[in-house]
Amino acid sequence: MLKLYSFTQSSASYRVRIVLALKGVEVEIIPISLIDNIHLTTEYKAINPQQRVPFLVDGETNIAQSLAIIDYLEEMYPNPSIYPENMGERAKCRAFAHVIASDIFPLQNLGLRRKLTNDFGLDEIGQAEWCAYWISKGFTALEAELEAQNKSVINTGFLFGDYPTLADICLVPQMRNARRYGVELAKFPRLVEYDAKAAAHLAFKVSAPEMQGFK
Amino acid sequence: MLKLYSFTQSSASYRVRIVLALKGVEVEIIPISLIDNIHLTTEYKAINPQQRVPFLVDGETNIAQSLAIIDYLEEMYPNPSIYPENMGERAKCRAFAHVIASDIFPLQNLGLRRKLTNDFGLDEIGQAEWCAYWISKGFTALEAELEAQNKSVINTGFLFGDYPTLADICLVPQMRNARRYGVELAKFPRLVEYDAKAAAHLAFKVSAPEMQGFK
Repeated sequence: MLKLYSFTQSSASYRVRIVLALKGVEVEIIPISLIDNIHLTTEYKAINPQQRVPFLVDGETNIAQSLAIIDYLEEMYPNPSIYPENMGERAKCRAFAHVIASDIFPLQNLGLRRKLTNDFGLDEIGQAEWCAYWISKGFTALEAELEAQNKSVINTGFLFGDYPTLADICLVPQMRNARRYGVELAKFPRLVEYDAKAAAHLAFKVSAPEMQGFK
Repeated sequence: MLKLYSFTQSSASYRVRIVLALKGVEVEIIPISLIDNIHLTTEYKAINPQQRVPFLVDGETNIAQSLAIIDYLEEMYPNPSIYPENMGERAKCRAFAHVIASDIFPLQNLGLRRKLTNDFGLDEIGQAEWCAYWISKGFTALEAELEAQNKSVINTGFLFGDYPTLADICLVPQMRNARRYGVELAKFPRLVEYDAKAAAHLAFKVSAPEMQGFK
């Protein structure tokens, strides 16, 4: 059986849990609390020298990085797919996901926040403002994109059609972070609507942090 | 013909230029200088509402985000491929690339550096130290990975075999940034060796910033 080293509250881990649930893949989930610094123990370092989560172990194959894990799962278990069938749409779906995975997420994750506090004495309120700034900036780009294409849940269902794709899979965990940091979500009505649509899907529900039963 | 909006010194643009050169795809390159804030003009906003580079236009299809553009090119022009044939190796190749694209690059790019200066008064030396910190952290993980697998240019050629893959394509531009910010490269002998191997490849050479003939 696959093993996933996952931190309940990590949105990158959350993405992978959604894909496993969508594809109905059996997996043993092993909790690694970043808050308790379990990722920094020598035991975990022996498993994953990069000391990050998520981390997938499939027999002899070990894979780090949420998007690499997700593409591996897509190749191993192609049905249901998490990509649109049309090539241009597939590219746009990936671009949407990368705005979240590269332009937003890394600028608000735990390691960065700790460094800001260490280097510049940023307190908790300052951290939240910092995170909200980068989330808002990325969401503004995504909302503009949806608006330019006049996309809405009524027209398309999920972001890229009638089933969830990588775009929805990255949006839902990021939207949760947006709420946590007090981002003004009224400015992003289309993102809010697509988030609600996907979050109501069973595979997304069972993958949520509060459904994990541990930290 | 494809059009690529590209900033000479942007390492994300540089990745896309390498892929176009590797695949021998004809492209019109349109320079967008981020230093001169050309990306913030209304003219460019009309083309790309996200106001970032790289940005690819292929007839009616517009694609943002370097890794999404690269996967689109891989699907449109599959030969030569930029991925390993083996599924597990392909996943590891993608994971290597994502360490650079998600864990390193976003923490040292221009927008972030400007914000650090604005919020905390970080000067040029402080900026370079900040960038060097994140590059070293990511490179440490990658070097450990190569060491664990006992990989070297003599054994493998390029990072994932006898032709360049997404891993090499992300490494070379990032290594250039590492030099710019004074990262202590002696700590990363395997990365240095793979960088030299790929940088000597013609497709990498013609894609380098200094070969673009404009800013």
